[in-house]
Amino acid sequence: MNDITTTLRVDGRRLWDSLMALARIGATPKGGVCRLALTDLDRQGREQVIAWAREAGLTITIDRIGNCFMRRRGRNAALAPVMTGSHIDTQPTGGKFDGNYGVLAGLEVVRTLNDHGIETEAPIEVAFWTNEEGSRFVPVMMGSGVFARAFTLAQAYAAQDAEGRTVGEELARIGFVGDEEPGDHPIGAYFEAHIEQGPVLEDAGVTIGVVSGVLGIRWFDCTVTGMEAHAGPTPMALRRDALQVATRLMQEVVATAQRHAPEGRGTVGMVQLHPNSRNVIPGQVRFSIDLRHATDAVVDRMAAEVHAFAQRLQAESGLPIEIVPVSSYPAQAFDDGCVRAVQRAAESLGYSHLAVVSGAGHDAVYTARLAPTGMIFVPCKDGISHNEVEDARADHLEAGCNVLLQVMLERAGVRA
Amino acid sequence: MNDITTTLRVDGRRLWDSLMALARIGATPKGGVCRLALTDLDRQGREQVIAWAREAGLTITIDRIGNCFMRRRGRNAALAPVMTGSHIDTQPTGGKFDGNYGVLAGLEVVRTLNDHGIETEAPIEVAFWTNEEGSRFVPVMMGSGVFARAFTLAQAYAAQDAEGRTVGEELARIGFVGDEEPGDHPIGAYFEAHIEQGPVLEDAGVTIGVVSGVLGIRWFDCTVTGMEAHAGPTPMALRRDALQVATRLMQEVVATAQRHAPEGRGTVGMVQLHPNSRNVIPGQVRFSIDLRHATDAVVDRMAAEVHAFAQRLQAESGLPIEIVPVSSYPAQAFDDGCVRAVQRAAESLGYSHLAVVSGAGHDAVYTARLAPTGMIFVPCKDGISHNEVEDARADHLEAGCNVLLQVMLERAGVRA
Repeated sequence: MNDITTTLRVDGRRLWDSLMALARIGATPKGGVCRLALTDLDRQGREQVIAWAREAGLTITIDRIGNCFMRRRGRNAALAPVMTGSHIDTQPTGGKFDGNYGVLAGLEVVRTLNDHGIETEAPIEVAFWTNEEGSRFVPVMMGSGVFARAFTLAQAYAAQDAEGRTVGEELARIGFVGDEEPGDHPIGAYFEAHIEQGPVLEDAGVTIGVVSGVLGIRWFDCTVTGMEAHAGPTPMALRRDALQVATRLMQEVVATAQRHAPEGRGTVGMVQLHPNSRNVIPGQVRFSIDLRHATDAVVDRMAAEVHAFAQRLQAESGLPIEIVPVSSYPAQAFDDGCVRAVQRAAESLGYSHLAVVSGAGHDAVYTARLAPTGMIFVPCKDGISHNEVEDARADHLEAGCNVLLQVMLERAGVRA
Repeated sequence: MNDITTTLRVDGRRLWDSLMALARIGATPKGGVCRLALTDLDRQGREQVIAWAREAGLTITIDRIGNCFMRRRGRNAALAPVMTGSHIDTQPTGGKFDGNYGVLAGLEVVRTLNDHGIETEAPIEVAFWTNEEGSRFVPVMMGSGVFARAFTLAQAYAAQDAEGRTVGEELARIGFVGDEEPGDHPIGAYFEAHIEQGPVLEDAGVTIGVVSGVLGIRWFDCTVTGMEAHAGPTPMALRRDALQVATRLMQEVVATAQRHAPEGRGTVGMVQLHPNSRNVIPGQVRFSIDLRHATDAVVDRMAAEVHAFAQRLQAESGLPIEIVPVSSYPAQAFDDGCVRAVQRAAESLGYSHLAVVSGAGHDAVYTARLAPTGMIFVPCKDGISHNEVEDARADHLEAGCNVLLQVMLERAGVRA
């Protein structure tokens, strides 16, 4: 890169103002945002971003699942665009930064290039993907998933919200069924800037997370069956207490993750007792198991270890233990070249940085199946996201956007 | 006792038939009984029992809380009656035997004495106490509790069901507000026959449980507070997982009871997570603790041990643990003389027997505050009670009734 590009910096204040302006659409009294996918508020948000994109001279393309691609032309129209983006739909009690930051950081990159009249070789595109959150319609990461052909457009269209309205109907209603076939859109490389949604960067006092990939996830439901009986008249020796057996397995889920530190994760988030009465020994306990690791082979080994423990526990206790798979998401490593580019940019910009993995899914998981992909994390306050109190520092958001600018310029190329 | 009384036996068939007849009032399709306290069905049950008592020549007295005393005169009217009894109200999905057995066993004792023209020195009384179950109106053991002045008549009258109807109104409505002041009724001794409602006798293959007393109970609510966070992005080392801390304390509740075997009991029956979501680390866990032992000093020591463990766990984990007392019921040892009488009777009748404690409360807990008291347990199928499948063997019920006959005759005295 030449001198112009290495000294180029985004306008952090403008980025912040755009974030705050977009956050007014669907703003909640507690300072968050509720802008569920394919609602009128989502439409307003989309129209606002597109209006800003048009002001910045971008050309808009929309595909049949409502993904929007906002293109800044390059010198060589034959090159696949270097893309960035994320989503603007939110959780019901969502924050201002999740997703929105990735889209508006892309817009800020474009505005910065415009300010300095910089022309890139490859085109640059800023995308927002439909229904990343999956709050109103499952599955999550719907737009990027259809784009990557993880599932079909028909499957996505058929998804219903709690009131029975479908994605197909709602997408048409808000006027965002585009012409382009999802996936018929080349991507040269993809970078996504995002708040971390976890506590690692803040805890380490680091500005930039260089994301190496996304953890593989295995979800299970576990049921331990004992015998319900009165807490008073039943001596300890004659009990078949489902909870006492279940708690040992719950602890093992965490112990397994700890054996596979630092990337292993193990969580029991949901527990249900039957009959759940103060003076009745639990006859049945159902609970969820969530296992994650950056390597699929390891997360599968973790699952095998939990299963083996459960079998020993069943033999020892005499209580049946059933473990049923619920969902499985493969791990996704990001492109080495993109990951190194992010690290290099953070380094050259003088930002403290740390190699991290993403525990949560992002649209970048699907683009990584199609094109070299990388992600840039910035800290969020207390690691909290999917919450109206979600917060991030303006200087961190600006830093992440500067890294994004550098990696996109490096990929897109600028003639000296 | 003389020869006549030692060879005397109840009519097991008649006892069984009475149990089945009473069970038809409020019978459920699954073979159980739903005869909630102070309902029309309770009235019908009361009237049936009183009709049988009148047929057997008994005199009825009712007190102001609706307890009924059915008296068979003795030679010496100045002696306090030897009383037996229990209750005829049931759980919503109750069985045929809980309570009803104790009342109808008493009636069978009377009928047997009538058959053989046996006159006792002291009068004999069969009682049924109002609202033992506490399903519709709390507290449990209401009639015997008012009788023993554990709480006032006014408090009992004010108790409301889920529809807002009070005990005072409902007792008047079914016509069972008597004249006698509760407790103004001398008791020479009290024996109560009851199904065990636990698995000990069946497990041991024993016919008669010689009940030494009723366990003291301590109830607590425990809250462990962590920090809710996303299961994916939060590394194990940065978690404050309330469930992982709570499960250790749940196990300690059971371990504590096991250290105080065989009479110690420890149960966690109710657990509630917040937010209870598959991919969120639990931020808070609330659960119940139920500790029991036959000796109050020991159950208090058990509670202290659980508290001490919780304090160590809080210090070690850094997660606040709050334990709040909910209820406390003192242990009640039965009268040595009565307990020995039950054992002697079982022995002389040739029934296998075992010293047991009652883990659940009974009306005998309150009579024990007023008069020498003992209880006779018989096995119930699989230890199950408070359930429509509650079952008991006719020969066991007959055996328990024969023991009851013997101890009542011994206490009441029969002139040779």
